[in-house]
Amino acid sequence: MLGTMLLFGEHPSSFAKSEKGVPGIQDRLHLKNLNDTVDYYAAQREQWLAKAEANKPVLTETIVKPVRLGKLVKDNDAFQNWRMDPAASIDQFISQGFKEQSGVIIDFGTHVTGYVSFSLRPLHTTPDAPLRLKLTFGEVPSEVAVPFDPYPGGLSRAWLQDEIVTVSELPAQITIPRRLAFRYVKVELLSPSIAYDFTFDSIQIKATSSASTAVAALASKTSERIKAIDRVGLQTLSECMQTVYEDGPKRDRRLWIGDLYLEALANDVSYKNHQLTRRCLYLLAALANKEGYLHGTVFERPKPHPQEGQQLLDYALLFGVALKDYAENTGDTGTALDLWPVVKRQIDLVTRYLQPDGRLDYDRANKELWIFIDWKDGLHKAVAIQGLAIFALKQAYQLAKHLGKEKELSGLPNMIQKMEQASRKYFFDQQKQLFVSGPAKQVSYASQLWMVLSGVVSRKDAPSLIHTLEQDATALKPGGPYLYHYLLQAMIQSGMGKEAKEIMLQYWGQMVDMGADTFWEVYDPTDEYKSPYNFYPVNSYCHAWSCTPVYFIRKYPEIFQNE
Amino acid sequence: MLGTMLLFGEHPSSFAKSEKGVPGIQDRLHLKNLNDTVDYYAAQREQWLAKAEANKPVLTETIVKPVRLGKLVKDNDAFQNWRMDPAASIDQFISQGFKEQSGVIIDFGTHVTGYVSFSLRPLHTTPDAPLRLKLTFGEVPSEVAVPFDPYPGGLSRAWLQDEIVTVSELPAQITIPRRLAFRYVKVELLSPSIAYDFTFDSIQIKATSSASTAVAALASKTSERIKAIDRVGLQTLSECMQTVYEDGPKRDRRLWIGDLYLEALANDVSYKNHQLTRRCLYLLAALANKEGYLHGTVFERPKPHPQEGQQLLDYALLFGVALKDYAENTGDTGTALDLWPVVKRQIDLVTRYLQPDGRLDYDRANKELWIFIDWKDGLHKAVAIQGLAIFALKQAYQLAKHLGKEKELSGLPNMIQKMEQASRKYFFDQQKQLFVSGPAKQVSYASQLWMVLSGVVSRKDAPSLIHTLEQDATALKPGGPYLYHYLLQAMIQSGMGKEAKEIMLQYWGQMVDMGADTFWEVYDPTDEYKSPYNFYPVNSYCHAWSCTPVYFIRKYPEIFQNE
Repeated sequence: MLGTMLLFGEHPSSFAKSEKGVPGIQDRLHLKNLNDTVDYYAAQREQWLAKAEANKPVLTETIVKPVRLGKLVKDNDAFQNWRMDPAASIDQFISQGFKEQSGVIIDFGTHVTGYVSFSLRPLHTTPDAPLRLKLTFGEVPSEVAVPFDPYPGGLSRAWLQDEIVTVSELPAQITIPRRLAFRYVKVELLSPSIAYDFTFDSIQIKATSSASTAVAALASKTSERIKAIDRVGLQTLSECMQTVYEDGPKRDRRLWIGDLYLEALANDVSYKNHQLTRRCLYLLAALANKEGYLHGTVFERPKPHPQEGQQLLDYALLFGVALKDYAENTGDTGTALDLWPVVKRQIDLVTRYLQPDGRLDYDRANKELWIFIDWKDGLHKAVAIQGLAIFALKQAYQLAKHLGKEKELSGLPNMIQKMEQASRKYFFDQQKQLFVSGPAKQVSYASQLWMVLSGVVSRKDAPSLIHTLEQDATALKPGGPYLYHYLLQAMIQSGMGKEAKEIMLQYWGQMVDMGADTFWEVYDPTDEYKSPYNFYPVNSYCHAWSCTPVYFIRKYPEIFQNE
Repeated sequence: MLGTMLLFGEHPSSFAKSEKGVPGIQDRLHLKNLNDTVDYYAAQREQWLAKAEANKPVLTETIVKPVRLGKLVKDNDAFQNWRMDPAASIDQFISQGFKEQSGVIIDFGTHVTGYVSFSLRPLHTTPDAPLRLKLTFGEVPSEVAVPFDPYPGGLSRAWLQDEIVTVSELPAQITIPRRLAFRYVKVELLSPSIAYDFTFDSIQIKATSSASTAVAALASKTSERIKAIDRVGLQTLSECMQTVYEDGPKRDRRLWIGDLYLEALANDVSYKNHQLTRRCLYLLAALANKEGYLHGTVFERPKPHPQEGQQLLDYALLFGVALKDYAENTGDTGTALDLWPVVKRQIDLVTRYLQPDGRLDYDRANKELWIFIDWKDGLHKAVAIQGLAIFALKQAYQLAKHLGKEKELSGLPNMIQKMEQASRKYFFDQQKQLFVSGPAKQVSYASQLWMVLSGVVSRKDAPSLIHTLEQDATALKPGGPYLYHYLLQAMIQSGMGKEAKEIMLQYWGQMVDMGADTFWEVYDPTDEYKSPYNFYPVNSYCHAWSCTPVYFIRKYPEIFQNE
């Protein structure tokens, strides 16, 4: 297996020179042994981190003021059964004592990410005691309607954005320390027995983003519905663009390779903050594990560090795709050359699980790593990861050619061919005329679309495959926006732009219809309460991987910017 | 009435020269009209405020670390039915993951006032989500045992010291913004579903006080019980000495004249921070109302300001007593001369309510001002306020003589004499041989002791009066430590030192027996749950007016520092 690992050439660091004697691959997979492993990127890590730091964007700060008070209305036709109607004006809110208004909902008119501050002023009598406020921030109306406790969710309760503040003196200027992402804030007085009254003199958000350039308008003939989807997509993207590409500004607020890849696609046709993409690529590289494999997610603070052990096979491979796109779009060959060793190293993950018959050993890979593909219960991912790997390997080879490094990957074309052949041979079900995954021969959108994107299915054959898929009532549909992105890409690539546009209008359009200010992490048209975390208010309602209509609309104007 | 107001001479400010034409006294009592009133201290206010600022003490900061974990035990013999037993060591607490320890109680070993900070460190795996902690601080065990909500209390719920903190990143160094006063802190993890564990690396308090000088030890023959009472009293006083004499560091955290008077007495024989007394006297003077009458309480922050409308007749009069004591104890005649006009002006409050028969018009005064005397339901205060006024007028006259200003009070001796005679004539019940207050002829400790302190009852007659009082089963006892102070002073002044000591040993000694680290605002030996605020956890358990054993023990060593 060691030989296989070195298929594509020399290791780039001094470690390569003493490759012999390092533990076998099985052992090396175990984190516990990593302490004993020589650092694969010993020579580069520090400068990569420095470059990540040097490319850290200065955030643009914008003061956003609320537009009105809102009033929650139970409505079976509204998203998650809650509608927010306009209520009083902000002037009215500010001019009146707060005690009688406790429980009020302030509506900022749009989703926003940043730091909330407010000032309080006493009314009439001298305050003689502290007061206690609870502020509950909601991205969507249900978040300020549904009680958070007792909390049934699987993720940390602390993601939910409610804060209790003790105000010791008035007048007071308060800033909530944590960054928040929301449109609505419910404010409750938890100390109603104070003997005085007070008023909010002001409340505002210092919104932050690294997406500050003006975005070109769409063609005038673009439909209003597409324009609306684009607006929401741009808002989503801009809020996720902070000092890294975050996945969601409410939750999880960090850099994931999968989100980065899609955000970079959308950024490239809109805000064009390539410095941010560069920073993220360097940061991920610098924080790879000692063996050189990327972590699926990393953190910037308190100091840059990876989530130890969080290794996603598909995300590791998509890094190379993102780097190739970056290099092509920017002409920044220097960065691509710097980070080329990382792309090459991730390929070893494929060779590690590649069986002689050309199939990845899915069961083993799935045990040793996380294969994400989609949030979808019961999805069998053997075909999808096979397709994704082929797709990524092809892009890596293109990058190698672009960099004059194809000799380092001399074995790759044959390997890809073998994997493609195996895919057709082992995964295609002649009877169903669809790719099937696993012993239960599961049919899914994930499997088909990755076979299309990988090129295992030719452009000519793809439309028929997708039509067959659409007729199959047993087919597992995409679980969320992340996989819908790849579905649209596969369809557009197969000349099915019209159908892709239809899906966008339906899927993303429906979110807009339901009042989305930003696109959601999770959206299942058949279940508005769906949550991978067992509590829908902890879902992220502004999520990077849902922003890609921005990319499609602008990348393919002939499809999307037409009536 | 205007004539009466000017009984004791010229007004000290330019306002005096245009006294004619100002509104009648009744109108002037109404705050709404104060805006139209010329400022009584126009010429002095600014310099008084500047002197208050110049005398602001620099607080001494001391780092205090916890001593152990505590374990709450329900115990009918313990104060308020809760006992705190020692549990694990702090080393053990810090060495273990917190998730399993949620709900732990950290015991700092003593009551302390200051700023709490702690640091958190992740264990084993990379934290990938924020966490949420609730910290509940208790001065006494019941405060960390009894739920605060639903809150039944009459004062602000925000006085209770529980804080919820969202920690976005680990490792983290957290400081709770509000100053806290406590011995115990209960720490709960409100986000138990986090996927990682963490530990408290440290937790500490930066304790603050303006009582920093070493206090002389008591005579070696002093009993252990008196020594213990003295220790607790000193701790109480030191925590209340901040940038002003606060009433209680947990609640209300501000300068009240009544507390200042007693704290200054205790400070004068212990920490001797006369600068603090000076600051407080100037601050109160500078923040008197436009008519020149003192507010019972003032605030330092955000900038010095009074509690508008909070005018206490007894507290206004005690200001002069405190200034006289200060001048005598320090020899600082300059300050006394500076503030003499304020003392003189407060006397007008007495003349305003004085009736031709020599009695204060209690009903009217009680309607227009707050007459405090004691926290005691149903207490009729006509006799007590008559006695307190005589007491204060006599001290004011002594101060005048000390300053060579007695000519400004030429009418005072006669007025005092008249008030004394009226007291004996109208309030003394021959049958009961006690002073009685109000139409119901109420007998109370408050009435008798103020008749003694005022000198209406001679030193010779006082012991018999007090013995008669003690035999009267209907007599209203003191409601709390504040009035107990005056009782002890009255007894000592009447040669009843032994009996006074006995009361101290019983009343304050019992608090020590029940584990008091600092003396309580409210203590009724017959009801441990007594609260003027309808919820005993919101009582202050470190309260200035309870610290005066420090004063008695050191002022009267022949009584208290003997076996």
